[in-house]
Amino acid sequence: MVVIIAVFAEVVTGYDMDNMTNSTAAPIPEDRADMSWDDATWIMTASFIIFTMQSGFGLLESGCVSLKNEVNIMVKNAVDVILGGLSYWVFGYGLSFGTAYSNIFFAAGDFAVSAPEQDMGPLFATYIFQLSFATTATTIVSGAIAERFNFMAYCMFSFINTVVYCIPAGWLWGEHGFLYKMGAIDIAGSAGVHLVGGVSGLVACIMVGPRLGRYDHGHEPFPMGSPTNAMLGMFMLWWGWLGFNCGSTFGVRGHKWKYAARSAVTTINASLGGGLFGCAFSLITTKKLMIGDLINSVLGGLVAVTAGCALYHTWEAVVVGIVGGMLAVVTMPLVDRLKIDDPVGAVSVHGVGGLWGVLAIGLFVDADSLEKITNGRAGLFKGGGWHLLGVQTLCCVCIIIWSAVVTFILLFLINKVKPIRMSAHEELLGADLVEHGIRHQGLGLSRTVSALRRHSQIDPKLVTELPPEVGSNLGGFNRKNSRG
Amino acid sequence: MVVIIAVFAEVVTGYDMDNMTNSTAAPIPEDRADMSWDDATWIMTASFIIFTMQSGFGLLESGCVSLKNEVNIMVKNAVDVILGGLSYWVFGYGLSFGTAYSNIFFAAGDFAVSAPEQDMGPLFATYIFQLSFATTATTIVSGAIAERFNFMAYCMFSFINTVVYCIPAGWLWGEHGFLYKMGAIDIAGSAGVHLVGGVSGLVACIMVGPRLGRYDHGHEPFPMGSPTNAMLGMFMLWWGWLGFNCGSTFGVRGHKWKYAARSAVTTINASLGGGLFGCAFSLITTKKLMIGDLINSVLGGLVAVTAGCALYHTWEAVVVGIVGGMLAVVTMPLVDRLKIDDPVGAVSVHGVGGLWGVLAIGLFVDADSLEKITNGRAGLFKGGGWHLLGVQTLCCVCIIIWSAVVTFILLFLINKVKPIRMSAHEELLGADLVEHGIRHQGLGLSRTVSALRRHSQIDPKLVTELPPEVGSNLGGFNRKNSRG
Amino acid sequence: MVVIIAVFAEVVTGYDMDNMTNSTAAPIPEDRADMSWDDATWIMTASFIIFTMQSGFGLLESGCVSLKNEVNIMVKNAVDVILGGLSYWVFGYGLSFGTAYSNIFFAAGDFAVSAPEQDMGPLFATYIFQLSFATTATTIVSGAIAERFNFMAYCMFSFINTVVYCIPAGWLWGEHGFLYKMGAIDIAGSAGVHLVGGVSGLVACIMVGPRLGRYDHGHEPFPMGSPTNAMLGMFMLWWGWLGFNCGSTFGVRGHKWKYAARSAVTTINASLGGGLFGCAFSLITTKKLMIGDLINSVLGGLVAVTAGCALYHTWEAVVVGIVGGMLAVVTMPLVDRLKIDDPVGAVSVHGVGGLWGVLAIGLFVDADSLEKITNGRAGLFKGGGWHLLGVQTLCCVCIIIWSAVVTFILLFLINKVKPIRMSAHEELLGADLVEHGIRHQGLGLSRTVSALRRHSQIDPKLVTELPPEVGSNLGGFNRKNSRG
Repeated sequence: MVVIIAVFAEVVTGYDMDNMTNSTAAPIPEDRADMSWDDATWIMTASFIIFTMQSGFGLLESGCVSLKNEVNIMVKNAVDVILGGLSYWVFGYGLSFGTAYSNIFFAAGDFAVSAPEQDMGPLFATYIFQLSFATTATTIVSGAIAERFNFMAYCMFSFINTVVYCIPAGWLWGEHGFLYKMGAIDIAGSAGVHLVGGVSGLVACIMVGPRLGRYDHGHEPFPMGSPTNAMLGMFMLWWGWLGFNCGSTFGVRGHKWKYAARSAVTTINASLGGGLFGCAFSLITTKKLMIGDLINSVLGGLVAVTAGCALYHTWEAVVVGIVGGMLAVVTMPLVDRLKIDDPVGAVSVHGVGGLWGVLAIGLFVDADSLEKITNGRAGLFKGGGWHLLGVQTLCCVCIIIWSAVVTFILLFLINKVKPIRMSAHEELLGADLVEHGIRHQGLGLSRTVSALRRHSQIDPKLVTELPPEVGSNLGGFNRKNSRG
Repeated sequence: MVVIIAVFAEVVTGYDMDNMTNSTAAPIPEDRADMSWDDATWIMTASFIIFTMQSGFGLLESGCVSLKNEVNIMVKNAVDVILGGLSYWVFGYGLSFGTAYSNIFFAAGDFAVSAPEQDMGPLFATYIFQLSFATTATTIVSGAIAERFNFMAYCMFSFINTVVYCIPAGWLWGEHGFLYKMGAIDIAGSAGVHLVGGVSGLVACIMVGPRLGRYDHGHEPFPMGSPTNAMLGMFMLWWGWLGFNCGSTFGVRGHKWKYAARSAVTTINASLGGGLFGCAFSLITTKKLMIGDLINSVLGGLVAVTAGCALYHTWEAVVVGIVGGMLAVVTMPLVDRLKIDDPVGAVSVHGVGGLWGVLAIGLFVDADSLEKITNGRAGLFKGGGWHLLGVQTLCCVCIIIWSAVVTFILLFLINKVKPIRMSAHEELLGADLVEHGIRHQGLGLSRTVSALRRHSQIDPKLVTELPPEVGSNLGGFNRKNSRG
Repeated sequence: MVVIIAVFAEVVTGYDMDNMTNSTAAPIPEDRADMSWDDATWIMTASFIIFTMQSGFGLLESGCVSLKNEVNIMVKNAVDVILGGLSYWVFGYGLSFGTAYSNIFFAAGDFAVSAPEQDMGPLFATYIFQLSFATTATTIVSGAIAERFNFMAYCMFSFINTVVYCIPAGWLWGEHGFLYKMGAIDIAGSAGVHLVGGVSGLVACIMVGPRLGRYDHGHEPFPMGSPTNAMLGMFMLWWGWLGFNCGSTFGVRGHKWKYAARSAVTTINASLGGGLFGCAFSLITTKKLMIGDLINSVLGGLVAVTAGCALYHTWEAVVVGIVGGMLAVVTMPLVDRLKIDDPVGAVSVHGVGGLWGVLAIGLFVDADSLEKITNGRAGLFKGGGWHLLGVQTLCCVCIIIWSAVVTFILLFLINKVKPIRMSAHEELLGADLVEHGIRHQGLGLSRTVSALRRHSQIDPKLVTELPPEVGSNLGGFNRKNSRG
């Protein structure tokens, strides 16, 4: 497949890979050697902020699912860091940025990342930053497959999922990467993190199937278990995103700090644009401000601006954010209509939003004058012609194909070892009870059970076989609102 | 009114506005031109921390109100950022610090903030910092009017409320501002953020009236919906405040970092003083440590130290904090006695605490030697005479008048377009259900309903007209403690 | 006792205390004089991050205890900051790092920390960093004695507990300290924070006795009140730990930033190792992934790496973390078997994990080449012989003895003034109701009550004497899962 992509790349762009000059898109480890403490502290501070986004993702996902799975999804987010972090240390970083060997598709070396003391500063600062990106990418998938993915299978996926992320990261941000050489621009990961995560989530979502009873009563989403936690999760992601985007200047010296400052403003502006659309859309279509629309439109705006955060004018960021928010909230019901059950909207927010974010660069971006991040190129609307848009499109195509195919292969193989779908019995009981021994009080299952009965998916007797502490709760609802 | 203030200002201080020399109170955009990356990263890091205070405000307010409104108030905090942020970008920053035109009352220019690349660093770093202040000021009001303010009306208010904040911000921190020229000192916003927010909240509180049934059983506050969330919100604000106050040195080079370090110590010390008073007061008067007293005394101490954080000696910070905490917890029942229903104590904490914070500078402050923030002036207790105290008093008077009058005008106008008070029916059901379609389980309304019956404020039949899912819950309470 | 330790120290190591040369273990205030803003902003940013760990500790402990105490433990965490912070300002810092007088056991001076303006930068930056450490150490104890320690007695303990922390901090990190002079290495506090806190918690735990009914049904832990909050607390601690360990380079200039970068990687790697063990252990022994095992193994790994975070190779950090996680989850049931009731596992995580962390340095550490933190010494496995391991062992012995004896004395004395154990009646009702007037709905007490009846610890009549709002809830459970 790598070969196909390469051929495709050459055909589309007419580039001779061997004679490419390096562009300077961020985040680039290339100027590591002369990293100073000013750069390093910025990078590290940004990393520390990015890690807090794990708390945000966990809470948001936990608040969106039903009560019986709210702890399990926090655990999955922890496992993403533990197993995904280990595999990133062991082989992920090396496949992205290893220095022992590289071709335009992958690198090798620096496995089990380590460094002699005289070199450790730049390498470790770079590594911790990249790690914070990698764990974020993995975590996106956990939302899409919530409430029915087998926990052990998820653990396996967490560990090897790193490969889905780290190869395109090398394409985009490694000096060896063909997208990097072509001048594809993805400053903080609309493609490398969000599009990868969204596509991977889509494939996983389709393969594992919808939750039991999900489409028995039309396409109305299941109610959120804890909207307050979901809102808090959104807030945490919002502020964490500033670390994500501003840290991606990968330093502060020279003119870099100016790009970081611009990134802060564009990041916020895009979130405002996205949120504005989401609020208006929700109020117009439902007469209410639905929490899901609010959250996903803000996040959609943030995802969209991520690729070009350091480059947009402030008003462009608002526009990019509005479109990002729009795509997130409008495509969510469409995904549902296809009976692709994505409980948190990860496919729309990260996948569609990320896709738009990468393409928007090809439309809006001016050639920047200080650091030449765009290599002197401008977008279609700025007189740069179709070239940059073409490169950005190629970038999307390659990443979508890669993420979809590799995720499919991985889950297909994992499914052979351990079925990725929970048993109906377990799904009915909820992963909190089944996987972690946690009994939630007042948690009823009647809606799901009756749906099951009607569909004869499981034996009606199952209900009477439930443990007494669950059976006695059958009169309740599938959802208990925040501390209700 | 602006003219009145100007005349008043001249009379009180005997200053000739035209011949004033610039003082150097922080945060000042004046030395933007030579901002370095060291300064910029400090300012941006502080901004990112300040934004996390939105999560803190949201959680604190959400924990303080009854369950049926706990999501709505999180949404209001998000809307504060979305709409308040947009209006700050469009016109707020320009009215505070615009460079195209200025007189001593307001500035103009820099609308829809934007910058050419060679200038973007200092402008955008300044903007993102000021934005984090602006959204905080708006958010204070959302607590005061919780549980009965119409959501659409609040959205309108969120958008134009920016004007309440940004004009006094220009007075205090713009080079053109008359308070700035007079040497008024408000380093991190006791006046510019908290007094503005507190007064604005007071006016809004009075105009919207108390919650239904609030004073039927004396003045005892309604119980908190989730004390645990309120405590977590307090913690988040506490640590976020360090970014607020320490970032307000607006840089680190030269001696500024030393002021930042002092700000960190005085900020913590004031919170300790405030909290100490609150704990002692609560234990003495009620034999218990009431959560509301604890939270508001800590915050009262923080608000109070904010104006002079970079200037106090460490023991003075403790004293300022003790008084700030005292004022917060002592005035809260007084406000209630006036039947001004402020569910989270925003008027006492931010209004009274902020007032004290600004005046305390006129009493305690020494002329600082390194950066001459006080322009060589000292407070009354330090041999500086009445001058500085007079200036600080004038500052408070002007800001109180401005905030009260403009908030009144804005809400009066909004009320014409969209009544600011929720209907009794909606208030009874709670904004979570009415505005966001969220049904909390086990949430009863009996207390409010019986209060209403007694007062004949609404038709007794209303109860039977309630949707069945609410009507069936009438045997419960108005509050469900954290996950009870 | 101090004399005993001194003699012991001389015997064990054969050192002549007067002729020792200074080593340069971090965090050291020694190079304060030439602190720059680069160093100061790193130190302050780290401090701000460390303070967020208070939120994490509060949430984790609150989630682990039963619902009837979940607010109380948040309050205890706030009191730790308020009273512990005040005493650290008044005398704690001075006893650790005062410059007026010092011998090898303690220092004096700098009481009620204050500074003239020209010196304030380095002192205040140092102070705020040390303060963030001190409040963390105190907070560890609050978890161990949760659910049955009298609140007023705890307030007293919070205030004077500072002395337990600050004396060993001087030994380790003050230029005068005998452990410092001997070259003991504890970069970010495995000994000075965690071992102190763990031992102190152990003694307090034993003295206050187990919770009522705790060991009536074997040693199975009581279920967590809110596993979701506990998970969120763990996440907050995880990311906060990066500030803790990376900030402990106490600056960034020269080579220090390189150590900070290494600390970031080793800190994360150790948490991954710990978490990996915890997951595997839990899945193997219980077929489920128990939340308690997950949380405590991650934290155990973090505690273990803290002492040598800036020194380990990346793979060593994984090993140190695996062992730390193993010790945490394996010793927890052992502690329980001794009927030492530690609801959050503080003794195992911080005590045992911290002990291992200090000793591991004596085994694994290489002599570092850039800043000579180890004074040229290496651990046993690196050819450095037994010397460093001996010093580290002595360090542990001295700190264990000190913490145990002083905690015992303090609690013994406090117990004379105010019994440290809540009355059975109060414990039954829960501290939230008794101390803060908070009534949780649907909170039953039947299990505890029947346990009490069987043991005749309290009069069976007590149940009927309970306030009606509690009596009517006796059919419920001791635990309500997160919003159940």
